[in-house]
Amino acid sequence: MTLSLSAEKYQCQPWPGLIEAYREYLPVSTTTPIVTLLEGNTPLIPSFTLAERIGRQVSVYIKYDGLNPTGSFKDRGMTMAISKAKEEGAKAVICASTGNTSAAAAAYARRGGMRPFVVIPDGYVALGKLAQALLYGAEVIAIRGNFDQALGVVRQMADNYPITLVNSLNPYRLEGQKTGAFEVVDVLGNAPDWLCIPMGNAGNITAYWMGFCQYFQAGKCDRLPKMMGFQAAGAAPLVNGQPVTKPETIATAIRIGNPASWGKAVAAKDASQGSFHAVTDAEILNAYQILASEEGIFCEPASASSVAGLLKMKDEIPTGATVVCILTGHGLKDPEMAMKHGNSQFQKGVEMKVEVVAKAMGF
Amino acid sequence: MTLSLSAEKYQCQPWPGLIEAYREYLPVSTTTPIVTLLEGNTPLIPSFTLAERIGRQVSVYIKYDGLNPTGSFKDRGMTMAISKAKEEGAKAVICASTGNTSAAAAAYARRGGMRPFVVIPDGYVALGKLAQALLYGAEVIAIRGNFDQALGVVRQMADNYPITLVNSLNPYRLEGQKTGAFEVVDVLGNAPDWLCIPMGNAGNITAYWMGFCQYFQAGKCDRLPKMMGFQAAGAAPLVNGQPVTKPETIATAIRIGNPASWGKAVAAKDASQGSFHAVTDAEILNAYQILASEEGIFCEPASASSVAGLLKMKDEIPTGATVVCILTGHGLKDPEMAMKHGNSQFQKGVEMKVEVVAKAMGF
Repeated sequence: MTLSLSAEKYQCQPWPGLIEAYREYLPVSTTTPIVTLLEGNTPLIPSFTLAERIGRQVSVYIKYDGLNPTGSFKDRGMTMAISKAKEEGAKAVICASTGNTSAAAAAYARRGGMRPFVVIPDGYVALGKLAQALLYGAEVIAIRGNFDQALGVVRQMADNYPITLVNSLNPYRLEGQKTGAFEVVDVLGNAPDWLCIPMGNAGNITAYWMGFCQYFQAGKCDRLPKMMGFQAAGAAPLVNGQPVTKPETIATAIRIGNPASWGKAVAAKDASQGSFHAVTDAEILNAYQILASEEGIFCEPASASSVAGLLKMKDEIPTGATVVCILTGHGLKDPEMAMKHGNSQFQKGVEMKVEVVAKAMGF
Repeated sequence: MTLSLSAEKYQCQPWPGLIEAYREYLPVSTTTPIVTLLEGNTPLIPSFTLAERIGRQVSVYIKYDGLNPTGSFKDRGMTMAISKAKEEGAKAVICASTGNTSAAAAAYARRGGMRPFVVIPDGYVALGKLAQALLYGAEVIAIRGNFDQALGVVRQMADNYPITLVNSLNPYRLEGQKTGAFEVVDVLGNAPDWLCIPMGNAGNITAYWMGFCQYFQAGKCDRLPKMMGFQAAGAAPLVNGQPVTKPETIATAIRIGNPASWGKAVAAKDASQGSFHAVTDAEILNAYQILASEEGIFCEPASASSVAGLLKMKDEIPTGATVVCILTGHGLKDPEMAMKHGNSQFQKGVEMKVEVVAKAMGF
């Protein structure tokens, strides 16, 4: 595989965050107060082991979006949602998320001088899952009710008080997320042939498609990728064509039974001649381990579904094609998963002699 | 505070990793095989709340090096150490670290097709601390002996087998780490007035000073910063002028009693007219919480010592000065610390009525 990332003269550029970088493509004005942690500009890492597994001169790149400030791609949408909330005079923001969204919402809201509220059902969520959001200063309200009722409360609060909803219904989230596509094109010089992406609420595949289309119209790329969306087999409503009542998968970040962006995701797939596929938890874990122990890239299990999908579909990739896989979250977000699924050697009680240690190491 | 990061035309640059970016300043040749995860190019985030606390037109920037691929600044040194090990024909690398170094060593070694060995004393280390390294494919050998004896074994293995030592004795580590200084100058357009940095083994302050001096000699900046090094009060040999037998601090990444780069760190301080100071665990925790809940930046406790030090020394900063604080690791590296020290509200059992929730929120 040939690297297209070489030979020129580089230096560390003063990256101003994704809103400043892509201002002309985003719904902001010169008076919008920009709340940024300099998110975006994440590495597009050439993958050698995946390219080798596929063969036929296919190039594979990993968009490592877990290297955003709070550790997930949610920062892309949140810099937009929080900046617009501040512009509109909100004093607080609110969501019903328990994972990456709540962490991103808390970090950006506090940076912007607003209060971040997280509403969850009582007894539903382990404290560990919320630790990051709490440290960022999220104020958590656990209500006596289920998750749907928590969502209902969140909407009513946003309707009746100077509080902005920043869950996936907030339209600015997708505007921010589409910049991931811009960055891929800026670095590769064109759109890839395939874009492999995990689907939960299906907002990210929708946003990437928006981004590619907008860049295409602006003349920044002269082709569009096939949008290849992957879901966990136990939470695959978009693959099966119907909602899943009790979604189950180890990939918690995409454990969603009735995606918010269902129609838009299907439209992206159809317009791009892409396709949707399910990957099993075993396939996700296999990809998770390959990424860590062969590429040196540690991601959330949900992120690994894009690579699991790529490996599943590898015989359908055209010879010489360029493929980009999106990794949405850093592996450090889910330390328990790493503890359970590391499969390397741990030898205990080894005698402290060089020849014994050498033998234990296979020398 | 005025942002110097604005107004120009940006796009996402194809960042090739720090060795390619700074090749002319590093001991690599055209035949050195570069093992990279596109580390470096980390954000230099303007800090508003710290600048406000200091006043007097002082500008403060946070170099968020926790956004390197494995979550810490160790990646800067490791891309160099592993690339050189590969060039020299090593089949394996070895270290006795249990924290960020072992994770970085494992990720880069596996990406470079080498085996990463980690030698630790039996029963000394919790599995959780090593989970990231194990998932990356580190092979751990726990020996019947103490930590010094583990270090002895590591050195003997490196002397007698085709195994490269990648702990802090490896000289290429500092070469890679000095690029942090290059990036600061590239983004600011000059060196800052103060550089605030945590000190454990004191390799990073040594490396930053090397970098600033080299860039100064190359005409890339026309001044040099005062090097302000900070240690935890319970592990402050450089401040007290003598080794600490039993170093104690919550900032585990700088819990070191006898720093490897002692002499070089003192030389950097003296040459730059800087100074060393101790900060208490309470001051470190306070900075850790301010960074998260006011700036939206989540770091390891050890990282927060640079900000704790800045706040401690704030009255000595010249009016109008530019200060850069180095945050060496991402907060997600230490989730237990976040769980213990989040101090925001968590209200349980709230009745599911809008007016009740609104009251709970203070509306």
